[in-house]
Amino acid sequence: MKTLCDIGEDALIDRLISLVPRDENPAAGPGDDCAVVDRDPLAPSLLLLKTDALVEHIHFLPDTPPRAVGWKAAARVVSDFAAMGGRPEYFLVTLALSPECEVAWAEDLYRGIGDCLRKFGGLLAGGESSSVPPGSAAVISIAATGSVLRNHVVLRSTAKPGDALLVTGKLGGSLHGKHLDFTPRLEEANWLVSKYKPTAMMDISDGLAKDLPRLAAASGCGFVIDHSAIPLTPGSTPAQALSDGEDFEILLAIEPARVAGLLGAWNAVFPGLPLTRIGELVESGTGESLTGGWDHFTGIDRAAGALAFPTNPNPSIDTPPHPP
Amino acid sequence: MKTLCDIGEDALIDRLISLVPRDENPAAGPGDDCAVVDRDPLAPSLLLLKTDALVEHIHFLPDTPPRAVGWKAAARVVSDFAAMGGRPEYFLVTLALSPECEVAWAEDLYRGIGDCLRKFGGLLAGGESSSVPPGSAAVISIAATGSVLRNHVVLRSTAKPGDALLVTGKLGGSLHGKHLDFTPRLEEANWLVSKYKPTAMMDISDGLAKDLPRLAAASGCGFVIDHSAIPLTPGSTPAQALSDGEDFEILLAIEPARVAGLLGAWNAVFPGLPLTRIGELVESGTGESLTGGWDHFTGIDRAAGALAFPTNPNPSIDTPPHPP
Repeated sequence: MKTLCDIGEDALIDRLISLVPRDENPAAGPGDDCAVVDRDPLAPSLLLLKTDALVEHIHFLPDTPPRAVGWKAAARVVSDFAAMGGRPEYFLVTLALSPECEVAWAEDLYRGIGDCLRKFGGLLAGGESSSVPPGSAAVISIAATGSVLRNHVVLRSTAKPGDALLVTGKLGGSLHGKHLDFTPRLEEANWLVSKYKPTAMMDISDGLAKDLPRLAAASGCGFVIDHSAIPLTPGSTPAQALSDGEDFEILLAIEPARVAGLLGAWNAVFPGLPLTRIGELVESGTGESLTGGWDHFTGIDRAAGALAFPTNPNPSIDTPPHPP
Repeated sequence: MKTLCDIGEDALIDRLISLVPRDENPAAGPGDDCAVVDRDPLAPSLLLLKTDALVEHIHFLPDTPPRAVGWKAAARVVSDFAAMGGRPEYFLVTLALSPECEVAWAEDLYRGIGDCLRKFGGLLAGGESSSVPPGSAAVISIAATGSVLRNHVVLRSTAKPGDALLVTGKLGGSLHGKHLDFTPRLEEANWLVSKYKPTAMMDISDGLAKDLPRLAAASGCGFVIDHSAIPLTPGSTPAQALSDGEDFEILLAIEPARVAGLLGAWNAVFPGLPLTRIGELVESGTGESLTGGWDHFTGIDRAAGALAFPTNPNPSIDTPPHPP
């Protein structure tokens, strides 16, 4: 019998979604950063839906400051709304925790969620709590609704060969702490879709090596990148920038004629944050391929060879600075 | 340091929700069966939001048929939409599973979710998957949106002293298999809100002994019940009917003058399903109290004294009939 680690995350999802009724004509379905639902054709905005989960020992460690875990749990979801050109609205928080968990830990977790919602917008609408058996990993699952103006929504699947590829910020180094104190690029992405609407956009959660091929494939394209152009987090290697994952920077495609204007305007509005051209989309079947990035079930692709945090040799990963 | 099992689920939730930004004027906030969001005051319907989770060893066992687990995971959420007078719309499914989990298990889980969505309506909009560390319990978390007509929505908090209390179906016996093959009372609740709008409504998920006091408290009432009137699942004791939980029947309050008319009409429309008057709401501070029902973190209230399934002496709980 095949197991999840035999087939990996993307193949699993492909198999599963065929077994359940789906919207036949979704604005965007499974596979994009968020689901996009058109509940009212007369409304100026579309409904965004997203769910994301953090698992102890996978996404954080038992001694990770819980306020940072809460920030991360909520900020990952905010990042996905940003990647669609939208904003967060209502949050549902599910906790699966040991009965032996300290109340203070759960309270600090919620304070971290609150830090993120106060900074980026979003309201707690409800939640669910359950115990887990002794020794089981804690799971924090956050689902949320968001909103995007109909003429601002950007999918992964709408770029064309020839479009330039750019990334915000710097890549790599998530395991050195960035995975706990990253800033979702909500304001930046909202500015992008209103001023220089990209042809495709996504956030980099599983590493450029995993996510760029997803964007290209969704758009029916191949890609080429200038590896020397990839912006590196100080202390990170090019391999880590491709594969660490959890960068939560925005990867976007845009018509090449608009790149110069975009870069000039960007540097004036966001002077502290690089926006870097790293390559272009090409015809499907041409271009290069990338290996690496994070797969939850095969777990063998991350650059460092670490299956997950407990096997990572770097003890600094669980002592990050407190999120802003 | 206090732990979750020291304070219990309700006190935990009270503490946590004060730490996060919330809607100041929610149509219904944390504490009802679903969150109710009024996104567009001109729209005839309100948005319902719900999240719910199943944890291995707590809500199902490793050898529970995965199709039944999937049915249960989705049907619990459908039951909550029913309890608001609404219907399900879009589902987000989060899986936290071991990499050693068989692909066939996950596929059957999704088939069970699909069985439920095909029967009651609802479309898969997206999801999330993560690995859990070796030996950790699997967690299935389902979040969903629903819709309720503005003039149909029924909260827990709007009943008055003197209102009659009724329940659908029969109570108790969830541990003998009913927890895996229950039928959410979606059609029945939709009929109720359109024909005999109750003054308050909720589904019974943690046992009448836990949930009736919640409804009464939300409405600022006490309650009295006729214990001999509580409809028992065959083979269940009165104590089990109060405390087993996972009945997923509807508990409703209605003006007493309307009960006779309601019961007559009900029996004509739903001849196979009892609707039973079990008591009434009274002034706050009067009436009786109940102990029992399920608390996820203290775990000490369930009638049988079982903390969770692994300690339950009845082996039949993991061999239920397949869900319809």
